[in-house]
Amino acid sequence: MSIALIIPDRDLTELQQRLQQKLPQTEVEIWPNISQAQNIEFALVWKPPLGSLSSLPNLKAIQCFGAGVDAILQDSSIPLVPIARIVDDRLSQTMVSYLDGVVAHYQLRFDTFLQQQQQQIWKPKSPRKLTHICILGLGELGTAAAKHFVALGYKVSGWSRRAKSLPQVTSYSGDTELAAAVTDADVVICLLPLTEQTDSLLNDEVFAVFKTNSILINVARGAIVDDNALIRALDSGKLQAACLDVFRQEPLPAEHPFWQHPAVFITPHISAVTNIEAAIEQTILNYQRQQQGLPMQNLIDIKQGY
Amino acid sequence: MSIALIIPDRDLTELQQRLQQKLPQTEVEIWPNISQAQNIEFALVWKPPLGSLSSLPNLKAIQCFGAGVDAILQDSSIPLVPIARIVDDRLSQTMVSYLDGVVAHYQLRFDTFLQQQQQQIWKPKSPRKLTHICILGLGELGTAAAKHFVALGYKVSGWSRRAKSLPQVTSYSGDTELAAAVTDADVVICLLPLTEQTDSLLNDEVFAVFKTNSILINVARGAIVDDNALIRALDSGKLQAACLDVFRQEPLPAEHPFWQHPAVFITPHISAVTNIEAAIEQTILNYQRQQQGLPMQNLIDIKQGY
Ligand SMILES: NC(=O)c1ccc[n+]([C@@H]2O[C@H](COP(=O)([O-])OP(=O)(O)OC[C@H]3O[C@@H](n4cnc5c(N)ncnc54)[C@H](OP(=O)(O)O)[C@@H]3O)[C@@H](O)[C@H]2O)c1
Ligand SMILES: NC(=O)c1ccc[n+]([C@@H]2O[C@H](COP(=O)([O-])OP(=O)(O)OC[C@H]3O[C@@H](n4cnc5c(N)ncnc54)[C@H](OP(=O)(O)O)[C@@H]3O)[C@@H](O)[C@H]2O)c1
Repeated sequence: MSIALIIPDRDLTELQQRLQQKLPQTEVEIWPNISQAQNIEFALVWKPPLGSLSSLPNLKAIQCFGAGVDAILQDSSIPLVPIARIVDDRLSQTMVSYLDGVVAHYQLRFDTFLQQQQQQIWKPKSPRKLTHICILGLGELGTAAAKHFVALGYKVSGWSRRAKSLPQVTSYSGDTELAAAVTDADVVICLLPLTEQTDSLLNDEVFAVFKTNSILINVARGAIVDDNALIRALDSGKLQAACLDVFRQEPLPAEHPFWQHPAVFITPHISAVTNIEAAIEQTILNYQRQQQGLPMQNLIDIKQGY
Repeated sequence: MSIALIIPDRDLTELQQRLQQKLPQTEVEIWPNISQAQNIEFALVWKPPLGSLSSLPNLKAIQCFGAGVDAILQDSSIPLVPIARIVDDRLSQTMVSYLDGVVAHYQLRFDTFLQQQQQQIWKPKSPRKLTHICILGLGELGTAAAKHFVALGYKVSGWSRRAKSLPQVTSYSGDTELAAAVTDADVVICLLPLTEQTDSLLNDEVFAVFKTNSILINVARGAIVDDNALIRALDSGKLQAACLDVFRQEPLPAEHPFWQHPAVFITPHISAVTNIEAAIEQTILNYQRQQQGLPMQNLIDIKQGY
């Protein structure tokens, strides 16, 4: 019985040691240095290389090292085993702090003042009056964000697959209600998972129903946004700004027009980084549950893609 | 009995009309178009030109159109009459929102990411760990800021002329305790009035006792900071950043090194703009009190300079 860590481009020494210490009976190996592939029953993964999971013939369960499983499911060869993800209050709190800071940044016009500073322009302006926030995706993170902005006094609407009932949040659901969810919002925050349904969801057609002068914050996955449509929406003035933490390709390629676009604020996928303690706790718990024949916690719905 | 509005470089039509409407028996005139200087008993002023107040022989009271009276007191020719200032919860709330946004900006390293974006550098970094905030000046605004950051879980210290007792705020007072107040703080917020005592208070000597890598936020008055000392402190790495909303000369002159300094974030004196409703209410109230022989509200101590 062994565990494989399939997390490329990251020093896994500490993670391996800490898991090994807590699970002395189990071998914890770092992919691709797996001694016996047939011994691996459990894999902790993040952006697993294509084919890496299907090379493990006896895999029984996959634990994702983060909240979003899109990078796992894009490999159509993965074995049909249960997949769990990280759900962690600390992660939600980190995301909420980031969103709070971004909304303050625009509310206070820091974007404008930073540009004015570059041009040595002194031009006082009053704060923006952003009063209505729409949150696309009312799952773990979206719900935490909605509650936060409701508590601050914002008008909040939300959009999800199934209708929700959250205090003081106007709930919209399903494709037919997306337009109604976004159309009055000053700020639209994307917290959807990337699935077949949400891929390039934010395209020309959808930006057309955004409120004129609204602001987009994408902290979910880059591919939910049609990049060219976003640039068109910014250039036409439909949207006045976009804060993007996630991109179709990461690192964002040097030639991508987002880098230099005056209305785009780029952060390098830092809005909510997996807490290592939470990842270790949940991996151990799910490994033990799986060994005991119990269902893992925080399972995703493979058919829905999230 | 007339009121003079002495607020240069501002369209005063609306303010005049609204005051006139509420005080139909009183003439409200806009300086320098005063029909009879000897009729003026009350002046509402902001940055009054030198000599403007002393040209009113029967002036009985001065109402400042803002929280800080330094620009009035710098004219040594002003008549010795009571001076009142604006004290307004909305002003404090606006200031607190600004400070909250600035602290989030640095906490989330938006300064770093904005610079990286300019250079097309993708380099994720975890948030700063700013945990201790020191507030210089624990008056109306400083107290509101202290309470806010205490509520958010920050360690807060404060410095004032007289010792204060505010829940969970470590109070320091007087010149001898300034070093102790700032020395452990990750962020120092200046909310002092500009007086003879505070002019160039933040100089080489004081920056030397700041915590290494700390951040200065000045939202009080520019002249409290020795500009060259601040630049030296930033260049030496003693301070890692400064957010400045106020300057010795405003607009900040084009040749000033702050504009281009990579560690300086400039906002054009917008952190807390006087609320016009509050100014009208308090001006009318104080005018009426003065006419009735009652002391005005929110009087300043002319000897102390604030
Ligand atoms: N930038 C970062 O650092 C970072 C960090 C963590 C996570 N993320 C991203 O954030 C995403 C959301 O995380 P989470 O934990 O909140 O996910 P979650 O709990 O699974 O919630 C997903 C939400 O999206 C809704 N949704 C899914 N497909 C939809 C569709 N086709 N139409 C309408 N609504 C749809 C779901 O609706 P139902 O409620 O009806 O199911 C649910 O409300 C993750 O998938 C990940 O990609 C980014
Ligand atoms: N940037 C903007 O948009 C903006 C807007 C509004 C105001 N301001 C500035 O903010 C300043 C503060 O406003 P406020 O309403 O909070 O003033 P305040 O109520 O008069 O409070 C001033 C505070 O500073 C302390 N202080 C004064 N001189 C001191 C000294 N020599 N040493 C130590 N502490 C000293 C006072 O101590 P005690 O408590 O012992 O008296 C008091 O705590 C104003 O004077 C104004 O210049 C800026």
